[in-house]
Amino acid sequence: MEGVSGGLLAHEVSSAGGLGLIAGSYGDYEWLAHEWANAAGERVGIGFISWALSRQPATLRRALDELDPVAVMLSFGDPAPFAGAVLSSGAILMIQVQTIADTQRALDVGADVIVAQGTEAGGHGTTNRATMPLIPAIVDLVAERNKNTPVVASGGIADGRGIAAALALGADGVLMGTRFWATAEALVPAQGWSAMLAATGEETVRTHVEDFARGRDWPHQYTSRVLRNRFVDHWQDASFDASADLQILRHDYEKALVNHDYDVVPISSSQSAGLIRRVEPAADLVTTVISEAEATLTRLYRGVCSER
Amino acid sequence: MEGVSGGLLAHEVSSAGGLGLIAGSYGDYEWLAHEWANAAGERVGIGFISWALSRQPATLRRALDELDPVAVMLSFGDPAPFAGAVLSSGAILMIQVQTIADTQRALDVGADVIVAQGTEAGGHGTTNRATMPLIPAIVDLVAERNKNTPVVASGGIADGRGIAAALALGADGVLMGTRFWATAEALVPAQGWSAMLAATGEETVRTHVEDFARGRDWPHQYTSRVLRNRFVDHWQDASFDASADLQILRHDYEKALVNHDYDVVPISSSQSAGLIRRVEPAADLVTTVISEAEATLTRLYRGVCSER
Repeated sequence: MEGVSGGLLAHEVSSAGGLGLIAGSYGDYEWLAHEWANAAGERVGIGFISWALSRQPATLRRALDELDPVAVMLSFGDPAPFAGAVLSSGAILMIQVQTIADTQRALDVGADVIVAQGTEAGGHGTTNRATMPLIPAIVDLVAERNKNTPVVASGGIADGRGIAAALALGADGVLMGTRFWATAEALVPAQGWSAMLAATGEETVRTHVEDFARGRDWPHQYTSRVLRNRFVDHWQDASFDASADLQILRHDYEKALVNHDYDVVPISSSQSAGLIRRVEPAADLVTTVISEAEATLTRLYRGVCSER
Repeated sequence: MEGVSGGLLAHEVSSAGGLGLIAGSYGDYEWLAHEWANAAGERVGIGFISWALSRQPATLRRALDELDPVAVMLSFGDPAPFAGAVLSSGAILMIQVQTIADTQRALDVGADVIVAQGTEAGGHGTTNRATMPLIPAIVDLVAERNKNTPVVASGGIADGRGIAAALALGADGVLMGTRFWATAEALVPAQGWSAMLAATGEETVRTHVEDFARGRDWPHQYTSRVLRNRFVDHWQDASFDASADLQILRHDYEKALVNHDYDVVPISSSQSAGLIRRVEPAADLVTTVISEAEATLTRLYRGVCSER
């Protein structure tokens, strides 16, 4: 949600009963502080990319000292260098994981919340595990370690049915990214919304292309799930052995960024894209999906269980 | 479940309240008729691989005429050449799909049941969609076409939590394969069970290797999800340009098949492998997972909904 989840979106999510996270991403403190002001004192959190934060450690210190977030989520890489500072600040330490080893490490450093992300998630992640089998495996692992750490499910969830399903798998909550991309408060140009609403969810692919294009040297295991477009299809299997190719790639990408040209700029998207049918206010969305989840669970209880 | 789901397993599943399917697979009628006898008159179905059945069309005719299955499931390829015969026999026509286009086609040919399979499923399937976002998309598609066709969720489901989650996503039921691999009645040698029970679910990969090894010319979009082993890791990225390589591959595989050597023979497995902790009788398993699902839905209803 880099550049997309700012203070206003986080404010709206928290005010409706969720927990809004501002995308601290790669650790640009100026952007973060600007967006923090837009949250207008609402209780919101901040998400950071751990491997990138290790190059901008001052950002975390300043965020904890000056902004005082209610929660900090660390994703993608070793959380150990940052966990102590988050915990001693009093913020809730959320750690996003993709594997069993990630989860062991997160529990070892004292995570207050585990966010378990399946491969169908939008944006950065890994290919190995899908949400449906991942969540119960992580829930069981937490239990085996005699922890009560809540597990939050992430990846492929865009409505109340997905929330109800995640709870059934043993999760204590969900993290939704892509669905909030298509909200009124997301920092997204209208052309981006159109592309998202038109997608069925089959058009996504995990790729390194955008990271090459913008020179973000992500660890190789992390790809970004995006909607396929002309640019991604063209470059997806390129080896970039020739530096001339890389120059063309970057030039095209930078030009397209300015023009909001989504035939070139990849849109981060979960496989849940097809479940998103309109752009709506984020607070309404929070209320709607919670109601849907409750209605789903009530219907199932009455239909499946109480007849016996 | 080729060679694994025989008549006894199907019998036990159906007798416990499920619907057992015998793996008709590539259309070997002799094997099928032998296993049919083991089902001892229980109401069971048969699953076929559509692209393979088109090379053995007599198998379907004989199965419908001589065995009279309660249901026929068609997977992987165009069901159109077979749908009419199944429907006019009175058997329930189940069609397994991986995409929206597959689902449109299945509805067009009159499917009685849609089985929607996510990429985390064991054995053959595709890479594009995971179960969590796929099921609601398929459920919505069926509704948009004003159909009441039941949707069955497949892929990554191995316990009652998964069943409850699938129902929450809008499915009317589930299809479980891998979990029944580890049942007493599955046609699996003990060495195979040991490998499955030891796996966490992170060790699976989608691959063409076994199909190359046994000369099954699957359409390219279908890979098989298996537990990684020495053989798969060695050959996974091979191009097989050199026919000498292919000879070695096939020789090693055939030798290992005889010896039940699971360092070489790949075990088809869902990403749910880590949720499987013991081999048990299939009928007990059916009863257990249904109870688990009911308990899960009851707990969620009471905890999430009724407190409001």
